[in-house]
Amino acid sequence: MRAVQVVGYHQKLEMTEVEKPEPTGPFDVVVKIGGAGVCRTDLHILEGQWEEKSGVTLPYTIGHENAGWVESVGSAVTHVAEGDKVILHPLVTCGLCRACRTGDDVHCENNTFPGISVDGGYADYILTTARSVVRIDDSLEPAGVAALADAGLTAYHAVAKAVRRLTPRDTCVMIGAGGLGHIGIQCLKAMSAAELVVVDRNPDALKLALDIGADHGIVAEGKQVEEVLELTGGLGAPVVVDFVGENGSTAEGLAMTRQAGDYLVVGYGENVDVPTIDLVSAEKNVIGNLVGSYNDLCDLMALAGRGLVTLHTQTYGLEDFQSAIDDLDNGRVRGRAILVP
Amino acid sequence: MRAVQVVGYHQKLEMTEVEKPEPTGPFDVVVKIGGAGVCRTDLHILEGQWEEKSGVTLPYTIGHENAGWVESVGSAVTHVAEGDKVILHPLVTCGLCRACRTGDDVHCENNTFPGISVDGGYADYILTTARSVVRIDDSLEPAGVAALADAGLTAYHAVAKAVRRLTPRDTCVMIGAGGLGHIGIQCLKAMSAAELVVVDRNPDALKLALDIGADHGIVAEGKQVEEVLELTGGLGAPVVVDFVGENGSTAEGLAMTRQAGDYLVVGYGENVDVPTIDLVSAEKNVIGNLVGSYNDLCDLMALAGRGLVTLHTQTYGLEDFQSAIDDLDNGRVRGRAILVP
Amino acid sequence: MRAVQVVGYHQKLEMTEVEKPEPTGPFDVVVKIGGAGVCRTDLHILEGQWEEKSGVTLPYTIGHENAGWVESVGSAVTHVAEGDKVILHPLVTCGLCRACRTGDDVHCENNTFPGISVDGGYADYILTTARSVVRIDDSLEPAGVAALADAGLTAYHAVAKAVRRLTPRDTCVMIGAGGLGHIGIQCLKAMSAAELVVVDRNPDALKLALDIGADHGIVAEGKQVEEVLELTGGLGAPVVVDFVGENGSTAEGLAMTRQAGDYLVVGYGENVDVPTIDLVSAEKNVIGNLVGSYNDLCDLMALAGRGLVTLHTQTYGLEDFQSAIDDLDNGRVRGRAILVP
Amino acid sequence: MRAVQVVGYHQKLEMTEVEKPEPTGPFDVVVKIGGAGVCRTDLHILEGQWEEKSGVTLPYTIGHENAGWVESVGSAVTHVAEGDKVILHPLVTCGLCRACRTGDDVHCENNTFPGISVDGGYADYILTTARSVVRIDDSLEPAGVAALADAGLTAYHAVAKAVRRLTPRDTCVMIGAGGLGHIGIQCLKAMSAAELVVVDRNPDALKLALDIGADHGIVAEGKQVEEVLELTGGLGAPVVVDFVGENGSTAEGLAMTRQAGDYLVVGYGENVDVPTIDLVSAEKNVIGNLVGSYNDLCDLMALAGRGLVTLHTQTYGLEDFQSAIDDLDNGRVRGRAILVP
Repeated sequence: MRAVQVVGYHQKLEMTEVEKPEPTGPFDVVVKIGGAGVCRTDLHILEGQWEEKSGVTLPYTIGHENAGWVESVGSAVTHVAEGDKVILHPLVTCGLCRACRTGDDVHCENNTFPGISVDGGYADYILTTARSVVRIDDSLEPAGVAALADAGLTAYHAVAKAVRRLTPRDTCVMIGAGGLGHIGIQCLKAMSAAELVVVDRNPDALKLALDIGADHGIVAEGKQVEEVLELTGGLGAPVVVDFVGENGSTAEGLAMTRQAGDYLVVGYGENVDVPTIDLVSAEKNVIGNLVGSYNDLCDLMALAGRGLVTLHTQTYGLEDFQSAIDDLDNGRVRGRAILVP
Repeated sequence: MRAVQVVGYHQKLEMTEVEKPEPTGPFDVVVKIGGAGVCRTDLHILEGQWEEKSGVTLPYTIGHENAGWVESVGSAVTHVAEGDKVILHPLVTCGLCRACRTGDDVHCENNTFPGISVDGGYADYILTTARSVVRIDDSLEPAGVAALADAGLTAYHAVAKAVRRLTPRDTCVMIGAGGLGHIGIQCLKAMSAAELVVVDRNPDALKLALDIGADHGIVAEGKQVEEVLELTGGLGAPVVVDFVGENGSTAEGLAMTRQAGDYLVVGYGENVDVPTIDLVSAEKNVIGNLVGSYNDLCDLMALAGRGLVTLHTQTYGLEDFQSAIDDLDNGRVRGRAILVP
Repeated sequence: MRAVQVVGYHQKLEMTEVEKPEPTGPFDVVVKIGGAGVCRTDLHILEGQWEEKSGVTLPYTIGHENAGWVESVGSAVTHVAEGDKVILHPLVTCGLCRACRTGDDVHCENNTFPGISVDGGYADYILTTARSVVRIDDSLEPAGVAALADAGLTAYHAVAKAVRRLTPRDTCVMIGAGGLGHIGIQCLKAMSAAELVVVDRNPDALKLALDIGADHGIVAEGKQVEEVLELTGGLGAPVVVDFVGENGSTAEGLAMTRQAGDYLVVGYGENVDVPTIDLVSAEKNVIGNLVGSYNDLCDLMALAGRGLVTLHTQTYGLEDFQSAIDDLDNGRVRGRAILVP
Repeated sequence: MRAVQVVGYHQKLEMTEVEKPEPTGPFDVVVKIGGAGVCRTDLHILEGQWEEKSGVTLPYTIGHENAGWVESVGSAVTHVAEGDKVILHPLVTCGLCRACRTGDDVHCENNTFPGISVDGGYADYILTTARSVVRIDDSLEPAGVAALADAGLTAYHAVAKAVRRLTPRDTCVMIGAGGLGHIGIQCLKAMSAAELVVVDRNPDALKLALDIGADHGIVAEGKQVEEVLELTGGLGAPVVVDFVGENGSTAEGLAMTRQAGDYLVVGYGENVDVPTIDLVSAEKNVIGNLVGSYNDLCDLMALAGRGLVTLHTQTYGLEDFQSAIDDLDNGRVRGRAILVP
């Protein structure tokens, strides 16, 4: 089968022929790729940023946002069968460590990360396990939802935490109306009656944010903190979700957060640097957010299945992987780029 | 001022002239009535069902669903002022018992219940306290929201409990699409992405339920339990909200509830009568529900203020109280009957 | 190997030779039995009470409270190894259904129940899986903890729910200071600073209850409800745990429960039969309780490993199984009867 | 009556005669001081550190950890009466803002802080309100518990948050075994079965920590992070409570925190300065902690009333206030210094 591989850092990806994976373990599942998301992380991998962290041996197949059809299953797999339409949770997890046993599989002590630490989905087929596949609604297509597997799942996960603290009286602030924010807005409006204020530098992104459900948009031109305080009676918001995490957004996000409120950091780049006296005297919380769990992915797929979360995509043939990479690198992708074998 | 009073049980209400209340305590608030809901409980009061429980001395002014404008306030009241549009929480609470100190004021150890145990709102003015008034949005009118003060608040309270257990993957079942169910449906759809199945004997009520957001309607003709099980993969729903509580709905509601699920009883009439072995082996919970707290009422008013919860009303002049009572008693009220002085 | 089997209902158990189990599946684990609890449920099995429910084919090996040493493991098992001291969760669960994925494996949609629906632990060896074994502290012996696998786990599970609602200001009531209550008392005092009131008909059981940590004992002689109300300022307790569930304890338990409180039913026998108006007006909850999850068992073993939960046991050789059964049936067992091969 | 007042910053306190306060508002309560804690914050006030923040007008009476006997009450006060032994919550709160209505009175939008922003308790009498007094157990003396009103309440509040995340399998780490840590240890051991590891630079403080319930003590000599990781299987602890908040403890505390764990900052001094990528990739939370609520104080008094939390105190006559201040400033106080009028 075809596979697009990292052959060296600071080099271009290369397409090559490799052996099609087969289920060897009892819980193995092989999926025929229907769509593989092209993500900014893929660019970072090529720049060598993940070399040390992942410990992966080159060459290997890249691609960590995958969906498709079950091709074959190991002997013990009964909950999915050949032909099922599925999306793949980005991690392969053990099911036996304490984290897995409590539904918090993202913190599995023995996980692998296809597309980062083992072979991923820029290919005709991918090997995963029974624990990582989620069946999707008949109305959905793999290429349409693949990008929800990682970017969307991260947004959902943070928003689900936010929703637990919000009542209809509350205001939630989101910083960043880009890829993740776009999903986050839809998730929040589907799951909560709180008012949603979105902050972004880009007026066009805010226009889209308002179209898909945001109640207020604030252009980040230097007065965004004051504007949030004004909209919240001078108190700030009980929950601020920061999809940016750089260029000053962390200090601003904390300043927008009400006493005893939660500042959720999702995007990353800069440091959170805050006097302990400020955290203590206002009793604020800084809440870290990683990608969502398998359960989160099931919930997100329920939203997608009912049309409550949708995604703009721009598809490319698998062989056109370089165009997709180049378009992403040059800001020419509207929504998410998806490789379709 | 005018006041409609209970002068004896099994007798008709009478309108009379009484002294207009004045704020004597520091936290007293006098409200000019803009709308007073006529509730089935008022019929029960006249039938003597509350005589012993309330311990009220006759004659007294009836009416426990009230909204209007602040007329005057006691010396210590600063958070509302003359002219403010307000809705009244049905209870007057102490603010100092343990229940009040934790936001659970409905279980205040020292409460009074205007309209039931002291003078209520079938009148030109009512006396309440600073702890019981909630300012409402400029877009709302007292006569339009008065019925949310008790019936609506009860539905909101139960639904808010339901929402805490529901994810987008879940199904919630509501039994009863009448007065409370009608509000409950709107609240649930505003605050949750769960699928909502509504069960009622009346096909017209189900039609309305679907119009205002329910995803499925089931006519209760004897197969409602099977139909719910079919819609939930044979497992039942994680949360069932029963606004009926009689004519077999409790056994049916429990049968519709998934293992480890919650059956929320709101309506009342019959007994919950269930073998302990069934509760234990399926680990089901029977959750009692009373009217909501002051905080719940604030949240419900936020929903109403944004048009997410609306109510059909049929208004009567205060002097036409007997027509309102008669219409309610004879099933001639569409939505809720409201007295407007 | 030796195995004690059910050969017919209303017949005596028989010891026979059967083949020693081997791990055939990748996650299978064979455990050499160190102790198998003899439980009242075993008597009920012989009386045929479980015949229909379990659907088991006779003959089969009885015994569902098991602990011992890992004898051999399937190819995929890495978290336990030969020789490890383990206790067995009573269920064998799938790990892939929604319940398992959220840590609520007790409600696994595909579980088996060794000793009830498949071969159990009155034998030299038992077959289980990697998902059901919990390593125990070096200081513990299998025969000493085996009875915690089911009876103890049930008590722990209910108490853990109780603890989540209790603060140091609260009173918790437990009805029944027998086998489960005895564990429940130790768990509650280890995990909570609430005051504990224990109610039992037997003054000797209460004496033991006070010795192991209960703060007050009430002999159930007809005034137990009044006495609980007196100890709780007339309000009742926020949590009542009922280990009895028969002979009127459910009505009494609910009467001892404070407004907005939880009545946890663990023991079973009679019906909970309560007017909906009582549940609604006092907003009480009836909470069902089954055996605990795998995670609960890990937590209980942590308590046992630090000596915070201990158990009286009376050991018998495996070949003396009939004496153990007879002693249990005739009330001659102090603590729990354990078979030791 | 006598009152010890701040007459100028960088000047000594002075004792003077002032008028005894009287209840003028309906909910006012005047308390005869039985004990007033001398706190390091009092030293900071004299150094002018609170001048701007508090906005207090000089001269005023200092002292914010107060307990005593009710001397007289306003017309509306019914839950305490003359002669009652009480401890005072450090804040006077409004009871009507959203924070107060949800039991989170510490974030009252209209609070005053006796001893900081208005007259405090280095005096014969103090004026407070019905909302701030907690009756204490007959077995307790005001001078013995006064220091629990602020320092103890802060420790309790953080520990109560920690307890909600801890099971018997978990390890909790506390950094700092001084005044707050000493209370925190007792609270944690009373309310949880988690293992407790205490880290401090001072071996004597650790000895005391072990005496009052800590399971392990680690001398902070540079290897404390490694030692915590070793004790927690290399994963870190799910909850780390940092009573220090300076000299590197924040980075160390975060390094001791497990993935998806909570680092609770209570002490303050330095900045929390952490890359967003670290918070995101390990999904850690930084949780701010202020003093506890009125409810927390009630719970803490329940612990104290049963002897589960005790405090070393060193008492001084009110007229010896300068000795108490000097002793505290020079490290000559063992436990807490208390002024007794």
